[in-house]
Amino acid sequence: MSIPSSPRAVPAAPAVEPEPAPARLDLVALPGLPLIRPGDDLAGLLASAVIAVGGAAPGDVLVLAQKIVSKAEGRYVDLAAVAPSAAAEALAAETDKDARLVEVILRESRRVVRHSRHVLIVEHRCGFVMANAGIDRSNVDPIEGSDPVLLLPEDADASAARLHHALSARLGVPIAVIVSDSFGRPWRNGTVGVALGAAGLPAVRDLRGEPDLYGRPLRVTETGFADEIAAAASLLMGQGAEGRPAVLVRGLAPAGPPRPATDLIRGSTEDLFR
Amino acid sequence: MSIPSSPRAVPAAPAVEPEPAPARLDLVALPGLPLIRPGDDLAGLLASAVIAVGGAAPGDVLVLAQKIVSKAEGRYVDLAAVAPSAAAEALAAETDKDARLVEVILRESRRVVRHSRHVLIVEHRCGFVMANAGIDRSNVDPIEGSDPVLLLPEDADASAARLHHALSARLGVPIAVIVSDSFGRPWRNGTVGVALGAAGLPAVRDLRGEPDLYGRPLRVTETGFADEIAAAASLLMGQGAEGRPAVLVRGLAPAGPPRPATDLIRGSTEDLFR
Repeated sequence: MSIPSSPRAVPAAPAVEPEPAPARLDLVALPGLPLIRPGDDLAGLLASAVIAVGGAAPGDVLVLAQKIVSKAEGRYVDLAAVAPSAAAEALAAETDKDARLVEVILRESRRVVRHSRHVLIVEHRCGFVMANAGIDRSNVDPIEGSDPVLLLPEDADASAARLHHALSARLGVPIAVIVSDSFGRPWRNGTVGVALGAAGLPAVRDLRGEPDLYGRPLRVTETGFADEIAAAASLLMGQGAEGRPAVLVRGLAPAGPPRPATDLIRGSTEDLFR
Repeated sequence: MSIPSSPRAVPAAPAVEPEPAPARLDLVALPGLPLIRPGDDLAGLLASAVIAVGGAAPGDVLVLAQKIVSKAEGRYVDLAAVAPSAAAEALAAETDKDARLVEVILRESRRVVRHSRHVLIVEHRCGFVMANAGIDRSNVDPIEGSDPVLLLPEDADASAARLHHALSARLGVPIAVIVSDSFGRPWRNGTVGVALGAAGLPAVRDLRGEPDLYGRPLRVTETGFADEIAAAASLLMGQGAEGRPAVLVRGLAPAGPPRPATDLIRGSTEDLFR
């Protein structure tokens, strides 16, 4: 490859004054949350935990592991009471999964996107393309005589909005909320945090029309803002212990009018991989 | 859906003592870095910038936007000197892109994964599945009479390793390094930070064998650790201004033996979407 022929040519000064990005970001995992049960006042428990770490500041974002939202909403299904359909039985045989679990996954899905042995990737009824419709068997309280699994919230954006309003009211400060989960992804190993629901911030940020350093239009037009925040929070949440399902994020600059997390879901006509 | 029949059954105490995840994470964008030129002593410039924010602590991770690494390594190509092949011309017509740019993209790629109007997703020679082989026209210093574009580093893991060793030596403290970029992804809108190179930490963390709260084996076995750190740092880097290409991350707990970022790339035989 060649280096431009004018060595060390001094670049022209940037054509526009760059907008400063925030200089620091601080994340704190909220301590002291109890194991969440159906019907718990999650906003109340979270507000107390935020106060215990010093309260909220304008611009704060609270990231909540989907699990505690689903638990508070009672989103349990007892597999012991599920009768698998023929379709579920067939798919269970191909994927080497429990047929009752596959039945529940199918009930939560629009369609199957890909499957193979041990892998079942679906389009969730809310639009997310994800493994197993997000249904979780780990970290679900074992109850004698039943086999509970935990579904995703009915509508994670709506859950985020309710919590956003309740927490902002209780804390006296606008506090955005993200409901997060960990997804696998094509082409790359390992799961990363992503946003299922969001309220009080733009889940997708539109940079269209913003210039680069030299005044030329940027080619990347959108960033997955809420996904990046969810990934950051995931670093503090841990995995096996699941002891830290709520993370407060401070320092994000105001990012524009709110947009829900469903805006992060690529339309199937634009998606080359559906 | 049904709630388990034994209401408010108190879950058994966790079978194992949960391993504490770190309680806080602090990210600082390093100020004062000049625009980087080919041949610059990047480790020296970064070390000075880290010292300017108070120095490094054991466990710190420095995330660097791929662009400054590529620039220091002189990874420029002048499109004005590129003669497009017939294959590039044909692909350029289908994707509505500059044929010389497409030629350079193809030279940096093993193969084309998907393409459509305005979209060209390739398997980069290093294995990453990404748009345009990561080649950037934005924020590249304009030089009279030429049309430079910037390639990815030749080997981002090797770049990360060199910088990790040089910085750790200069700062007197082991400091891990991630070379990051922003990728689009299937199924979801917006770009997010990902790790192209990593040294001094495990880019993928293996949780295999770790129990959940109740002692049952976890089903998710790997997390995209370096990708999550890159996404977090991306929140501070900004986009158009690109004024903050280096972010120091403090507070991550020791995560195990180092693994390079190429471990994040899913093998093509396991990947259902290649």
